[in-house]
This record gives sequence, structure tokens and C-alpha cells, in this order.
Amino acid sequence: MGGDHGPSVVAPGVARAVKDGLAARFLLHGDPAALEAALARLPTIAGRVEIRPAERVIGADEKPAQAMRRGKGSSMWNAVESVKAGEAAACVSAGNTGALMAISKLALRMTSGMERPALVVSWPTPRGHTAVLDVGANISCDARRLVEFAIMGAAFHHAVHGSRRATVGLLNVGSEDEKGHEEVREANRILREMTLELDYVGFVEGDDIPKGSVDVVVTDGFTGNVALKTGEGLARYFRGELRRTFSSGPFAQLGAAIASTALRRMAERLDAPNGGPFLGLNGIVVKSHGGADARGFATAIRLAAGLATSDFVAQIDRNLRAMTAAMPTTNDMAGERTKA
Amino acid sequence: MGGDHGPSVVAPGVARAVKDGLAARFLLHGDPAALEAALARLPTIAGRVEIRPAERVIGADEKPAQAMRRGKGSSMWNAVESVKAGEAAACVSAGNTGALMAISKLALRMTSGMERPALVVSWPTPRGHTAVLDVGANISCDARRLVEFAIMGAAFHHAVHGSRRATVGLLNVGSEDEKGHEEVREANRILREMTLELDYVGFVEGDDIPKGSVDVVVTDGFTGNVALKTGEGLARYFRGELRRTFSSGPFAQLGAAIASTALRRMAERLDAPNGGPFLGLNGIVVKSHGGADARGFATAIRLAAGLATSDFVAQIDRNLRAMTAAMPTTNDMAGERTKA
Repeated sequence: MGGDHGPSVVAPGVARAVKDGLAARFLLHGDPAALEAALARLPTIAGRVEIRPAERVIGADEKPAQAMRRGKGSSMWNAVESVKAGEAAACVSAGNTGALMAISKLALRMTSGMERPALVVSWPTPRGHTAVLDVGANISCDARRLVEFAIMGAAFHHAVHGSRRATVGLLNVGSEDEKGHEEVREANRILREMTLELDYVGFVEGDDIPKGSVDVVVTDGFTGNVALKTGEGLARYFRGELRRTFSSGPFAQLGAAIASTALRRMAERLDAPNGGPFLGLNGIVVKSHGGADARGFATAIRLAAGLATSDFVAQIDRNLRAMTAAMPTTNDMAGERTKA
Repeated sequence: MGGDHGPSVVAPGVARAVKDGLAARFLLHGDPAALEAALARLPTIAGRVEIRPAERVIGADEKPAQAMRRGKGSSMWNAVESVKAGEAAACVSAGNTGALMAISKLALRMTSGMERPALVVSWPTPRGHTAVLDVGANISCDARRLVEFAIMGAAFHHAVHGSRRATVGLLNVGSEDEKGHEEVREANRILREMTLELDYVGFVEGDDIPKGSVDVVVTDGFTGNVALKTGEGLARYFRGELRRTFSSGPFAQLGAAIASTALRRMAERLDAPNGGPFLGLNGIVVKSHGGADARGFATAIRLAAGLATSDFVAQIDRNLRAMTAAMPTTNDMAGERTKA
């Protein structure tokens, strides 16, 4: 029911994903009348879709705390619960992000040691996609949290972008070991010493994200959010400049018309794929952009299906256990350092 | 003598700045033979330039500590000293950044309370330029430091980009007062309460930088460096994609040829202007990109001249004093908060 367009995008999104070859079945949670109306126009997916009536819908402006208190029985709540109950392999929603995160955390719980889910984006690069995390959920991160992001980012890239063993870099202001603040230096030391299912390459800088130097860029949620939004803003600025340039006179307009196919392909390459999972949950929940169209929603569905059919959750769990076994807890670490 | 090209760019850069109407005189510090050779081809500026012989040149890979210990008598050292002695109103160098900052700090000293210079960049936006600072010198910043950046950024934007009273935003992951970590929340509170020569608008997000929502965006050196390098990398990626797009087939090539004038103008708009001052020094020192050409070096010279003929240093000093008078020192602040 969520997002700017509700079932009128979700249902065609399902149809699109099926048409693209996804062999999945779908539970659609929400208002039966609205869902039936949206499905009526899509006979091809009738056999794959089951409507699960829900009493209410969580609004776009409801606070997470409100959603947790009063969300029971809503379409979002039921969708997450269906993952918990093992009825669904993954949940996809275009609804209220804060509410979805709060309900997911409450219903599915975090994997060991994590406090709140991390958010990851797939950044388009000349070499494919670089996963950047955290992009906003965890504002301040100690070294241990950054190592957890490395583990989750590597599992994500492996499951979604097919890297055999993901290369991981830690975002910093320079590449030398003594650069940056205490948290990144400590995380750098731990990642160098620890044996995990990833290839740690050391510190990377901001320009390594669009360059695609590594499969995964790890940073705290404050820096990652600023980098992501700066990048999104710059992409919009760039598209605006292109439009301005190609409407600046008759020659520019003619040039754009002649090169239009190549320009449209470029615009598609520059688009980040829709959908991001909440990482660190005992289950798969993917958030679609609220404004996504059917094509975008289908991308989020395929992402969720890719994660569900992969080793994703198990790989994260396996590596978090290896990390915990190899290092003392965060509280002990300060003591260990003092003693050393 | 500094930068990738030395006098062969610096001397034509001076000529270019003069040709563009800058009524200044120049002291060129360095190897007399090399400087004379470069000037021989530029008779138009002979009357405005004086060569100051220096015994040695600081290398591109010398460490700051090394440059401070052994730099005396070098062209860079003498150039900064000429500002200290009042012989020059400003110093411009394309040489070793770390050495230039260390020597400038040693010779000119910081204004009250500052520990090290802040670095600012002018980010091109649809509305002009947004000054972003700090972009790398101060990795961890408390609230007081962020307020100092707001003061210096506003003075910079006023002097260089002509804003009457600069609008200032504090970079964060959301616009509500409770967002972000302790340092930005505290700086937000101080900036709201204090009367300074700037218009504080509150929190801004990453996409407000390329949007040009405010004249000045304030952040710590870690976040600012990541945002700047991500932006630079993304601009390179866009340029690469454009090249790829316009060579992808005969129609694309023809379109690019027909629209070439408009495309070239766009490329110029996307370029950040060359040259950044070290903020917080008792004097004006501008760092040019090492790889700048004569046009770029002339831009850095004009920037230095603009700062030198403005109220820049006095405005910073005036506002830092107002800030210090209105707030307890950083060490006292924690105590004040506890008592409150």
C-alpha cells in the first residue's frame, strides 16, 4: 500500500518482475478492494498473487514510535510478520522508511551485537556497482561497527552484484595508516588482521566511490549520508546542466536530437538501481523509493529475490561470529589497549 | 617555483592576471635564471615584476616537518615571509601543500584560538558558488571549531563571491534540531543564539551543496574532504560518460560536433575555480593546484588580490572576538552544560 502511488505501482511492478523472468509468488498486504482493482488489469500474474487483507495503512508522516505502538494489523506490519513467520522469503515496501525500519527491527530482531540496521546503496561506476554503507542509520560508529559494515557490505555485493569475494575499502581522507580519526584507524587495524570472507584493501577516498576502485566502501552513517546526498544532488545538477546546454540554441538542440539514443542510454547508466535492504536483520526487508515507478519497484523486487535465494543472511551471520570470536567486545577493547 | 610546471606557468599566469585588468605588483621568489628566462617572453609585465632570488626550492615530496626545519631561504619560505614583513599583501603558491601550510602557520601564526588553518573550496552551483569548509585540515571538530568555520566561510564568500551577508548552513543528515551528533547540535544552538556578520539558516544536507541552497556550508574536515572528493570523482565520471556517449556511434558524434560550443561552455561552468586560501592565518596565503595552467594560476592570483583588497582578515578577527566574548572557552563549556 505504501509509496507515492500505492497498489497502482506495486501491482504492475510485480507483473514487470514476473515478465522479466522472476519465478516467485507474491503476498500483497493491504486494502483488498484497492489491490483487487490494481490486479484486475494484470491477468498474467493472477495465479502467482495472493491478497492478504490488512485493516489499516501506515501514513507517510507517522513517526517510527507511533508506527511501532499502533502499527499492528497494518499492511506494513503484516508484510514484515509474514517474513518472520516464514511465509515469505523477503519483504518489499515503498512506504514510510522510519516506520519500516522500526517495525522490521521489532519483529525480526537484529543479528548478534548490532543495534540498528545499516543502509546500503549501490552506486553506479564505470566498473559496475559499488556498495556504500552506512548511508544514514548509524550516525556515530566505533571500530567494531565499521567492521560489521564491511562484513555486511561484502555479503550484499556478493549476493546482488555477483562478486566472488568482494573487495572492501574503508573511507578516509588519505591512504596512509596514520590518517583519519581513531575509529577508522582501529577498524583498519582489525580488518587487516582478521580472516573474513572479503578482500580488505585498506583506506579509500571519496573519489574512489564513483571510480569503482572497490566493491564495497565502508563508512559511518553521517559521512555516508553526506556522500550519498552530495552525489545525488550533483547528478541532478549535472542533468540540469545537460538540459540547459541542449536547449541553449538551435545547434545545441539539433545536436541533442541527433544524439538522443546515446544520451538516453547514458541517463539510464547514471541512475542508481532502486531498492536497498536493511542490513543486520534476521530476515530480508527491502525498501523501495517512495516515488519509484513500476520498473523501479520491479528492480527492488528482484533485489529482494536475489538476496533471498543467496547465502546472504548466512554469510553475514558466519562472519559476524568469526569476528566476535577473534576480537574482545567493544568495552573490553579499551582495557586491552591500555594493558598492551 | 612550485607546482608541476614552475615558472613556465607562474610567469604567464601573472601576465594573464594583469591582462585581465589586475592592477598589482609581483614579487617572484626563486631561481633567478629560471625566472628571468620565463619573464623574457613576457615584456608587458616587466615593469610590475621584481625577482627575489632564493637559494633553494621545497620539493613536492618533502614532509611538512622537514620543510619547517630546513625550508629557511627557500622560495616558498621567502614568499610567506614577504607577507609577514608587509612587503606583499598576499602569497600565492602552486607548491607542496603540507609544506606551505606548515610554513604559513609558523611564520604568520593563527588568529586567536585556532589550531590549524581550514581549507575552503568554491563549489559551482546553478546560483553561483557555495563555499564549503573545512575540506581536510581539521579531521575532528568540536562545536566551537564549527562556529569558527562559519565565521571564516562567511568572510570568504563576502570577499570573493560578493555576497553582502553570507547565508550559512551546517551540514547534517537531516534538517530537524535533534538530528546528527553532539558537535553539530551544539554548533547549531550556538549559531542560532549568536549575533555574527552572517545569516545562519540551520542544518543543510549533502544535496544542498550542488544545489547552492546557501552561500557557505560548514562541516568538519573529515566529512568535507569526503564530500569534496566524491564530488570531484563524480564530475570526472560524468565527463567520462559524456565522452563515451558522444563517441558511441556516428549519430552521437555528429550530435556532439553540432552542439560543441554549448558543450564546451558547460564544461567550463562545471570546473571549480582554482585556488584556495588557508583560513585562520594572520595573513593571506592562497594555494593553487599543482597542475594548474596559466589561466588557472591567474584565477588563484585574482582570488588572493580579491582577499587582500577586502575586509576579509578584519571581518574574521572581528567576528572571532565577538564569538569569544559571547561564549565560554571550550573547556568551560562542558562544565557550563553540567551546571545548567
